[in-house]
Amino acid sequence: MNETQKFINDNKDRFLNELFELLRIPSVSADPAFNQDVLNTADKVAEFLKEAGADNVEVCETSGYPVVYGEKIIDPSKPTILVYGHYDVQPADPIELWESAPFEPIVKKTEIHPEGAIFARGSADDKGQFFMQVKAFEAMNKTGELPCNIKFMIEGEEEVGSSSLSEFVPANKEKLKNDIIVISDTEIISKDQPSISVGLRGLSYVEVEVHGANMDMHSGVYGGAVPNPLNVLSAMIAKLHDEDGRITIPGFYDDVLELSAEERAEMAKIPFDLEEYKKSVGIADIQGEKGYTTIERTSIRPTLDVNGMWGGYIGAGAKTVIAASAFAKISMRLVPNQDPDKITKLFTDYFPTLAPSSVRVVVKPHHGGHSYLLPTDDKGYLAAKKAMTQTFGKEALPTRSGGSIPIVALFEKELGSKSVLMGFGLNSDVIHSPNENYGLFNFYKGIETIPYFFKYYTEG
Amino acid sequence: MNETQKFINDNKDRFLNELFELLRIPSVSADPAFNQDVLNTADKVAEFLKEAGADNVEVCETSGYPVVYGEKIIDPSKPTILVYGHYDVQPADPIELWESAPFEPIVKKTEIHPEGAIFARGSADDKGQFFMQVKAFEAMNKTGELPCNIKFMIEGEEEVGSSSLSEFVPANKEKLKNDIIVISDTEIISKDQPSISVGLRGLSYVEVEVHGANMDMHSGVYGGAVPNPLNVLSAMIAKLHDEDGRITIPGFYDDVLELSAEERAEMAKIPFDLEEYKKSVGIADIQGEKGYTTIERTSIRPTLDVNGMWGGYIGAGAKTVIAASAFAKISMRLVPNQDPDKITKLFTDYFPTLAPSSVRVVVKPHHGGHSYLLPTDDKGYLAAKKAMTQTFGKEALPTRSGGSIPIVALFEKELGSKSVLMGFGLNSDVIHSPNENYGLFNFYKGIETIPYFFKYYTEG
Repeated sequence: MNETQKFINDNKDRFLNELFELLRIPSVSADPAFNQDVLNTADKVAEFLKEAGADNVEVCETSGYPVVYGEKIIDPSKPTILVYGHYDVQPADPIELWESAPFEPIVKKTEIHPEGAIFARGSADDKGQFFMQVKAFEAMNKTGELPCNIKFMIEGEEEVGSSSLSEFVPANKEKLKNDIIVISDTEIISKDQPSISVGLRGLSYVEVEVHGANMDMHSGVYGGAVPNPLNVLSAMIAKLHDEDGRITIPGFYDDVLELSAEERAEMAKIPFDLEEYKKSVGIADIQGEKGYTTIERTSIRPTLDVNGMWGGYIGAGAKTVIAASAFAKISMRLVPNQDPDKITKLFTDYFPTLAPSSVRVVVKPHHGGHSYLLPTDDKGYLAAKKAMTQTFGKEALPTRSGGSIPIVALFEKELGSKSVLMGFGLNSDVIHSPNENYGLFNFYKGIETIPYFFKYYTEG
Repeated sequence: MNETQKFINDNKDRFLNELFELLRIPSVSADPAFNQDVLNTADKVAEFLKEAGADNVEVCETSGYPVVYGEKIIDPSKPTILVYGHYDVQPADPIELWESAPFEPIVKKTEIHPEGAIFARGSADDKGQFFMQVKAFEAMNKTGELPCNIKFMIEGEEEVGSSSLSEFVPANKEKLKNDIIVISDTEIISKDQPSISVGLRGLSYVEVEVHGANMDMHSGVYGGAVPNPLNVLSAMIAKLHDEDGRITIPGFYDDVLELSAEERAEMAKIPFDLEEYKKSVGIADIQGEKGYTTIERTSIRPTLDVNGMWGGYIGAGAKTVIAASAFAKISMRLVPNQDPDKITKLFTDYFPTLAPSSVRVVVKPHHGGHSYLLPTDDKGYLAAKKAMTQTFGKEALPTRSGGSIPIVALFEKELGSKSVLMGFGLNSDVIHSPNENYGLFNFYKGIETIPYFFKYYTEG
């Protein structure tokens, strides 16, 4: 792969400038206001795939945002690797907390990235990461060192649950047929400790409404006699966890796979500094389910979090009003063997029972996703481990990610193939938060590593 | 007072049109965006006082919004009645729930007001009500039937706590000197059952903040290991009430004056239809402190309500984020003998103790107000009762209002005079809510009744 590495080295600046073009388009899939930007991003991705040398590039219609497809079939007898990624991004708000405009990418030096990091929404999640795959392919392809067949599937609804893919994937099994799927959308432990995610958490996301009176009312005239949806919703949410930080939904833990003492001991070997962790996010103390470590709480244990809550008067000053309704967005992270549909139903059945008879409760499911596990003896895992160990000069470790990539479970079900989560991000990338950033080190290390993964998988 | 009543009858339409001019100015004191409108309203009020025949009309500067003053001293040996009212209004939001523009007054027929009601923010609270006083004065004055001296003090900060008056009133004791204060800013039981508020609840209003991490974070990466300010704030709010609906703040009830069995029995005579009440606000069931009736819960018992709450992602769709901070506006309605400053301190001391060590809690006091009681043998009360009983043709009853008019306690302390709460509104006016309205019946009945109050008070 020497020519490939030389090509990468010679084109570093161009690769970065091209990524900036992608980052400048605000492809926020959650907010309809950005509809056209999301569509424009899909076209841009297709353009880059063509320039990289992909054949049959297509912006495929779905019931939601399009999937960008492209391929290079060099020899049907060789293995086929499907690259999955997503070109949509999280909303940028709270926008006022960004130190630079979220859609005007710039490179700034940081403590973690003295050589510089790219600051922009989507720089790490996932534009910066899937673009490494596109550029690695370009390098292998243009130097004649592409060792196997490759297919690209870059979607635009990952941040809102990849809902259209549940139709698209089954409808395009032949087109998407592959031996292994590689996804760069996760983190490594640190810049000098490579790792591969072998586990992802599932997700159940709901929106709840509590309705009291048929209008906002004067808190003096009615206060004390009518239900206050904000007080009621607060009390209901409080009841979702017990004193030990365990979730109270009946049956919630029934299907959770408990790890063996050996597995937990193995996990405890992952380097982790609690004080450093608390400092990095600025909290006085950690908080979570009793009896589990922070790494366990964020990987092998299911969780429930309020992601947003609102109601009543939230403007300047004081308004003495009792809101007619209160709202909250609540998501649950699930672990292997928990079924998101079952969990959503358990929540939907349980939550209203926490309310007094004075209010009306509505639960609306948003989206869900299954958890995922990749065996560490999988051929794809071994190829990724070998590639990373080589380029980082240190043995790559298996880890579990706390996040969710719903599509991975769908791929396994519909296409029967495993996914290798070979991501190059860091927790400090603060994806989904203001000032999301992606290290230049990580960006280029990814482009350098990916070709070796293709090589070792093909040889494997 | 025959000439006075004739004058009123001959000028009904003009009175209504003049009120509309006032209602068209959005004098929202809580929102700085309406600053100029509030000031313009003060000038408009001064204009109306002059036209009505008041002398020494003045728009008095304060540290906040101005107080409009005017007077008519016909004979120093006669009693002096001070009319208090406020020209500021509550914010109009949620604006989308208004059936007509909040600051474009119109008259519409309703089930309760077949003869029509004025729909506009401030129509009942308090522009429509204090304007009755201005027009009653004009009628008495222009017909030479004004029986005593009159002073007007119309302020612009009632909806935000009348904070400037704590300086203005002590600084203007001589100017405001009076024998009795009359305020039209409360409700009667119904159109055929006149009543006079002899009690008002006090108020303590605070804003709370719960801060977790130093930024919004990915709920997958951090969920389960870090404090979630929205979950934490919900749990803290839930702990502010116990199973019986009693407030858990230590010492909160210590100073509450419990009513005697006789007083409660007297109160129970006030006509009240629970089913009608539930229907009027559209709730399936009432909710409140165990052991008290709805009328008691909204008058003689203190309460605690969340008036607004927000945090995290509240936009369209789903965002898997853990908010850095969560916020709530919380107000407590107080009853006679409870000191708002003491209650605010009790809350401020107690609330942070409900939080885990993982978060930082901030409590910011907004404003407060003392409760008030008027003895039913007071000369002012008796004059109001006689006037209302005459014009309604039915004996007026004493009631307690759930709302707060902080200025009343201040008047008693600084000027040593009692206030008669002779309001003509109805609960169905939905003040502070969308579609606030004030019946034409109530507006004209008020203008008709007020001159008799002046007469009987002067004679009494």
